[in-house]
Amino acid sequence: MARAGDMRQSRPFSDRYCMLVPMPKVSERSLKMPASPIRRLMPFAEEAVRRGTVIYHLNIGQPDVESPREFWDAVQNTGLRYLEYTHSAGRTDLREKVAARYRDMGIEVEASQVMVCTAGSEALAFAMMACLNPGDEVILPEPFYANYLSFAMSAGVEIMPLETRIEDGFALPAVSEFRAKLTPRTKAILINNPGNPTGTIYDPAQLDGLRQLALERNLFLISDEVYREFNYTSSPVLSILQLEGLDEHAVMVDSVSKRFSLCGARIGFLVSRNKAVNENALKYAQARLAPPLLEQLGVLGALDAPKSYFDQVREEYRTRRDLLVSRLRAMSGVVCPLIDGAFYAMVELPIDDSDRFCRWLLESFDHRGETVMLSPATGFYSRPELGLRQVRIAYVLEKDKLNRAMDCLEAALQTYPGRVNVTAAAKS
Amino acid sequence: MARAGDMRQSRPFSDRYCMLVPMPKVSERSLKMPASPIRRLMPFAEEAVRRGTVIYHLNIGQPDVESPREFWDAVQNTGLRYLEYTHSAGRTDLREKVAARYRDMGIEVEASQVMVCTAGSEALAFAMMACLNPGDEVILPEPFYANYLSFAMSAGVEIMPLETRIEDGFALPAVSEFRAKLTPRTKAILINNPGNPTGTIYDPAQLDGLRQLALERNLFLISDEVYREFNYTSSPVLSILQLEGLDEHAVMVDSVSKRFSLCGARIGFLVSRNKAVNENALKYAQARLAPPLLEQLGVLGALDAPKSYFDQVREEYRTRRDLLVSRLRAMSGVVCPLIDGAFYAMVELPIDDSDRFCRWLLESFDHRGETVMLSPATGFYSRPELGLRQVRIAYVLEKDKLNRAMDCLEAALQTYPGRVNVTAAAKS
Repeated sequence: MARAGDMRQSRPFSDRYCMLVPMPKVSERSLKMPASPIRRLMPFAEEAVRRGTVIYHLNIGQPDVESPREFWDAVQNTGLRYLEYTHSAGRTDLREKVAARYRDMGIEVEASQVMVCTAGSEALAFAMMACLNPGDEVILPEPFYANYLSFAMSAGVEIMPLETRIEDGFALPAVSEFRAKLTPRTKAILINNPGNPTGTIYDPAQLDGLRQLALERNLFLISDEVYREFNYTSSPVLSILQLEGLDEHAVMVDSVSKRFSLCGARIGFLVSRNKAVNENALKYAQARLAPPLLEQLGVLGALDAPKSYFDQVREEYRTRRDLLVSRLRAMSGVVCPLIDGAFYAMVELPIDDSDRFCRWLLESFDHRGETVMLSPATGFYSRPELGLRQVRIAYVLEKDKLNRAMDCLEAALQTYPGRVNVTAAAKS
Repeated sequence: MARAGDMRQSRPFSDRYCMLVPMPKVSERSLKMPASPIRRLMPFAEEAVRRGTVIYHLNIGQPDVESPREFWDAVQNTGLRYLEYTHSAGRTDLREKVAARYRDMGIEVEASQVMVCTAGSEALAFAMMACLNPGDEVILPEPFYANYLSFAMSAGVEIMPLETRIEDGFALPAVSEFRAKLTPRTKAILINNPGNPTGTIYDPAQLDGLRQLALERNLFLISDEVYREFNYTSSPVLSILQLEGLDEHAVMVDSVSKRFSLCGARIGFLVSRNKAVNENALKYAQARLAPPLLEQLGVLGALDAPKSYFDQVREEYRTRRDLLVSRLRAMSGVVCPLIDGAFYAMVELPIDDSDRFCRWLLESFDHRGETVMLSPATGFYSRPELGLRQVRIAYVLEKDKLNRAMDCLEAALQTYPGRVNVTAAAKS
């Protein structure tokens, strides 16, 4: 029999209400789905805004840099009278141009191997549905992008997390640790490179280890590479599609959301040389008919943006990263690892509980009428307790605002009633 | 053991190939997914175009009427510099305006009960995930919109079809027939009103029967109402949200694709007064972050289109319907029932096999250099044989083209080698 505590957790009010008034019950699978950890603080943020508090949003990876002029030109000059469905795999001209851009980067693919999706989110969902059966297992390093769990739950797929540690800068575990997670149901490895939330970039030797394991155990290697251009190291980010012998194993997820500040466009790509993956993912694409047309046309334009566009974007984010890291490292009790890429930092704070702290920042704190919104790291781990003292910071604001946000965080850490002085990582 | 015939059907080439070269296999669930019946003739159409044949596309519900001026004004004057994620349930101003439009039609809902989705497709997928567990059963009249099957398969939900017959004008079966399909796993009834592919509109008495059954057996009543404005009768289309006492049972799916010729915009709505449905559907919405922003802004504009916009659209389609019905009924051996709404006709032809006929139209036939593309009805039935002699015709072309398409069909039926002269419905 379930204990009272369990009951409380697993049965929300609306479900208990069912016992009194006859009404159809929502599905158990949806009740088990987690609410987005990135968005669950929204009601407290809305309340803070109502009180007149200014909030610096470092809680969501929402870049604020101008999108390429070519995007706006394209959406304003479509010459269309109405909006048609496109091919379920996207417009042919867009698929061709995307494939050509990949070839420019040394990723050899054809247009037929690129499917336009309604953002990277959908590409990942299609990859899971096409590659994995309900009950199949996918190994992935944690902390991981919280929505991987949502997509896995929707698809009935089991997540087998492999812990990485802040003390090691969230480095990829040795292949032997992946091997220890293998079971007869293991069907895929999922990586995010550069990584959200950690900013880690995997080096060629690490990727080669995964390549060998995928070949040896006949696993899909699914790689989310949406932050490819956000690379602050001197070496290029290697795509899994550049690894030898993985034509049938490699499935890449991509998106224009981050690199062109087009999160709201919802245009991404599923890229694989495995014909059966493409054919079967297409069936899911056909069921939802087509990705949005206006935004496909805009991205067709944006892909003509000169190299200088992205060089400027990267330099802007590099400066923000440098500012963030130096401010954080100057705060007593704060642990901030090296950040190679993307635009996130997973940071350990001298606090008792990151959910409580992030909520307190919005509910009970302000610094000269301002506060900062962060993501509690608990949502990025399969076991929330691993993220109890960590937060994810998205450095997506320009330097002035970022500085003011850090002023808020510094002041908050001095007055937060749940401050603890020695953290696990600080000790080591 | 499987028979050879079964093997051939269930194992595509790419799967058999796996036996020779080690490669990870795609999921069995994706192999079982049907390819879209509406789109599977595309390669033959492309080949016909290469030969120089003009094709009249009556195979897909892709309206060709101009979208409202207000849509284009809105997308061309966003004043935005970059595209942000919106709230996962869509922009608040859009939800408020949509709710106000529903109230204008006599459907009492609040903005918080409207979720903006990436088209009606996603709204339906969210409805299934939020309401139904894997293995749950949903009863729906057949023939049905083919993608219902795809969404049900993705969600692991069982479709329990209830046959409707061309001889009865595809009328909704009596409630007793629904009752006969009930099992302990029945969790929902799904209707499409006005209906694709049949054009049927359900009258208040029929809907009341379903209402009583939903209340009595505590079932969700999910209604796809995307063709609401395409109504050629003198009575309004009743929404399930207007039925008494169904606040907790009624889940409505809507879309702007058809009514504003915005199929490519991918904006739809999930509407329910059941708070648990809304809260749990929101989790799936959060996983995919947000619907497309530019198109949300465009629809915000389109909703200001004057009533005269849609009056013109409806009159245009009414004229097309009248033309189509009179042309079809003048062809020997063709059965075309009354069409009340939407812009489809399910028609019985004097042919041996509709898949063969539709392919033959593209591969081996032309009438003065022109041909017509139709949808074989086999894809709209759970048992393809029920649609063997039927095709779905989408009357989405202007009258001149529609006339020429009918000339093609008439000529084709005279020369098609698989013509049969007496059909079941013609006999009755």
